[in-house]
Amino acid sequence: MSEFELIDRLQGIVNARTAGLLKPGSVGVGDDAAVLSVAPGRQLLVTVDTLVDGVHFPHQSAPFDIGYKALAVNLSDIAAMGGQPVCFFLALTIPDPCREWLDRFAQGLEHLATPSAVYLAGGDTTSGPLSITITALGVVDHGRALLRSGARPGDLIVLSGTTGLAGLGLIQLQRKAVVDPSAWQALTRPQPRLALGQALLGKATACIDISDGLAADLGHILAASQVGAELSLDCLPCPEALSKLDLQQRWNLQLGAGDDYELCFTLPATLEAQLPALAEAGGLGLTIIGRITEGNRLRLHRTDGTEFVPTRLGYDHFSSHRL
Amino acid sequence: MSEFELIDRLQGIVNARTAGLLKPGSVGVGDDAAVLSVAPGRQLLVTVDTLVDGVHFPHQSAPFDIGYKALAVNLSDIAAMGGQPVCFFLALTIPDPCREWLDRFAQGLEHLATPSAVYLAGGDTTSGPLSITITALGVVDHGRALLRSGARPGDLIVLSGTTGLAGLGLIQLQRKAVVDPSAWQALTRPQPRLALGQALLGKATACIDISDGLAADLGHILAASQVGAELSLDCLPCPEALSKLDLQQRWNLQLGAGDDYELCFTLPATLEAQLPALAEAGGLGLTIIGRITEGNRLRLHRTDGTEFVPTRLGYDHFSSHRL
Repeated sequence: MSEFELIDRLQGIVNARTAGLLKPGSVGVGDDAAVLSVAPGRQLLVTVDTLVDGVHFPHQSAPFDIGYKALAVNLSDIAAMGGQPVCFFLALTIPDPCREWLDRFAQGLEHLATPSAVYLAGGDTTSGPLSITITALGVVDHGRALLRSGARPGDLIVLSGTTGLAGLGLIQLQRKAVVDPSAWQALTRPQPRLALGQALLGKATACIDISDGLAADLGHILAASQVGAELSLDCLPCPEALSKLDLQQRWNLQLGAGDDYELCFTLPATLEAQLPALAEAGGLGLTIIGRITEGNRLRLHRTDGTEFVPTRLGYDHFSSHRL
Repeated sequence: MSEFELIDRLQGIVNARTAGLLKPGSVGVGDDAAVLSVAPGRQLLVTVDTLVDGVHFPHQSAPFDIGYKALAVNLSDIAAMGGQPVCFFLALTIPDPCREWLDRFAQGLEHLATPSAVYLAGGDTTSGPLSITITALGVVDHGRALLRSGARPGDLIVLSGTTGLAGLGLIQLQRKAVVDPSAWQALTRPQPRLALGQALLGKATACIDISDGLAADLGHILAASQVGAELSLDCLPCPEALSKLDLQQRWNLQLGAGDDYELCFTLPATLEAQLPALAEAGGLGLTIIGRITEGNRLRLHRTDGTEFVPTRLGYDHFSSHRL
C-alpha cells in the first residue's frame, strides 16, 4: 500500500461519518496546517499522548484495539479538564502498512470518535517502529477548566466507577492466563468520562484521570493543591473480578496499577447532596473514598484505623509521563 | 535518569527563557491538558510532524540537530499558512534517556523556540525507539490563512531562497563524502520562513513549504487550486555548491530532493512590484520561477523551449506524508 492509498483510506474511514462535524470556516485534512475557530468566551484544551508497541500495548495487539485506545487515553485527558472534545491529530508511525491493519485501526478510532463527536483534523504518517501519537483538542468555557490545583482541606474525594480491573487484565495477559471478560473490557475499551467531566464544571475543585494509578494520580492533585488526604480503603468500590483476591493484592491493583481512566475529583462537602445528580449526568457510579486534609501527606487507612502502604504507587519506572 | 528528572530537565531548559510568553489565563505544563486562549477574530493553526530515527535523520545524529529540526519542520508549516507560532507540544519516545543527550536535544529546541517566541506547552515522554512528534500551534487573523487552493491562471509563481542544498547534503552524507558547509547548514538548520509567511497575508493567493521537493509541493498547489503551471528552469536560483553539478543532476536536486523548507507561493501579476518589499520583510531573496496556467499540468521548460522531465518528483516511497 502506497502512502497515498494509506492517507486516502484513513481520511475516508475516519472522516466519512464525521465530515458533518467540520466547522464552517475550518480547513480540514490536506493543507500545511489545520485552521480551526474557537468561539469567543471559550478556551482551547490540548493534550498529547503516545502509545508505543510493546510498551503501552502488547505486540500483536488487534489494530482495532490500538486505534480505540490511542484516542481514548487522549479524550480521557479532555474529560478530566471538563472539556468538550472537538477534533484530533494523528501521527502514525508504522513499519509496513497493510490495508487490513489500517482498516481495522481506523475502525477502532472511529468506534470512539463517532459517539464522541470528534473528527480527524490532520496528521502525519511515517515509516518506522509502530507508534501512535494523538493530539486531542477540546474546548471549555473561559476560566472554568477543571485543574489539579483547586482542592481544599475538607473537600470530599470522589471516584467514578472502579479501579484495578485494567491492572488485573494486564497481569492475566502477561501470565498468559484466561483474562476475565470485565478486565479485558477495562483494558481495551476504557470509556473517557466526558459527560461526567462536563457535569463537574463549577462544582469540582480539582480533577484528574486515573492513568498512573489512583494513589499516584491523587498524589498529583495533592502536590498541585498543596494539601494532604485521608483515603479510606474500605470505601473503595470493588469490582466482582477483584473480590476473590486477597486484600493486599486487591488494594495494590486498585491503588497502583493504573490504566483505569476513571475520574478522581474533589468536591466541597457542602455539595455532597449533588452527588446522585452528578452520577446520573455522568452515567456511572460515584463513590466518596476520602477527604482532603491539611499538610501534604496521603494516608491510606482502613475503617479500624490501621494504615496500609501499597507495594507499587503507580509508574515509577521510565515508561511514559506527561510533561 | 528517571522520568521525573527527564521532565524537570526538559521543562527547565525549554521553558526557562520562554516562561514570560505564557499567556495570562493559560495553564502550562503539568495538568491533564494545556489551556490556551485564542483572541477574538483569530483562528488557530495546528500542525503535526514526526521525525523517526534513521528515517528523517541519520542514526547517531547530534541531539541538538534533532531537537532543532523537529521544531523547525513544524514551524515551517505554520509559516506556510501565514501564521504566528504560539507554542508546541512534544511527544518524545526515547530508548534510554541520558542527561547529556536530553540537555543537547532541549538546547536544539530552544535555539529555535526562543527567537521564534514559542514555548513548550505540554507533552508526553515514553520509552521506545527514538522518535519525536511535535504538534505546533499558531494563530492567524480569521479567514486570512494562506491555503493551497487559491492560485489562479496568470498568477506568478515565486520561490524564497534556493532549493537543492539539503538534498545535496543528504547525498554527500550517505556517500560518506565531505559535506559542503552550505549543504550541511541547509540540512540541519532550516529556517522557518515565518516573517515572509506573515508578510504574504492578503497578497499571496496560495502558499506551501517545500518539504517533499519543489515540483511535488507545487503540484499540491496545482491540485488544490485546479490549475496548471509553467516553470522556467533557467530562472531557478542556483546556490554556489550546486553550480558545479551537471544540469540534469542539479535540476533533479532542486526540483525533487525536498527538505528545503523554503516557501513557494503564487501572487497576482498585478502585485509584482511589491516583490522587493516582500523580500525585505521576509529577510531573504524572492525569485519568480514561473506562472500559473489553465489546465492541470506542470510543465518544466528551459528558455529555449525544451522540456525537462525530472527523475524524481519528491517522495514517492512510503516514508512520511501529511494527512
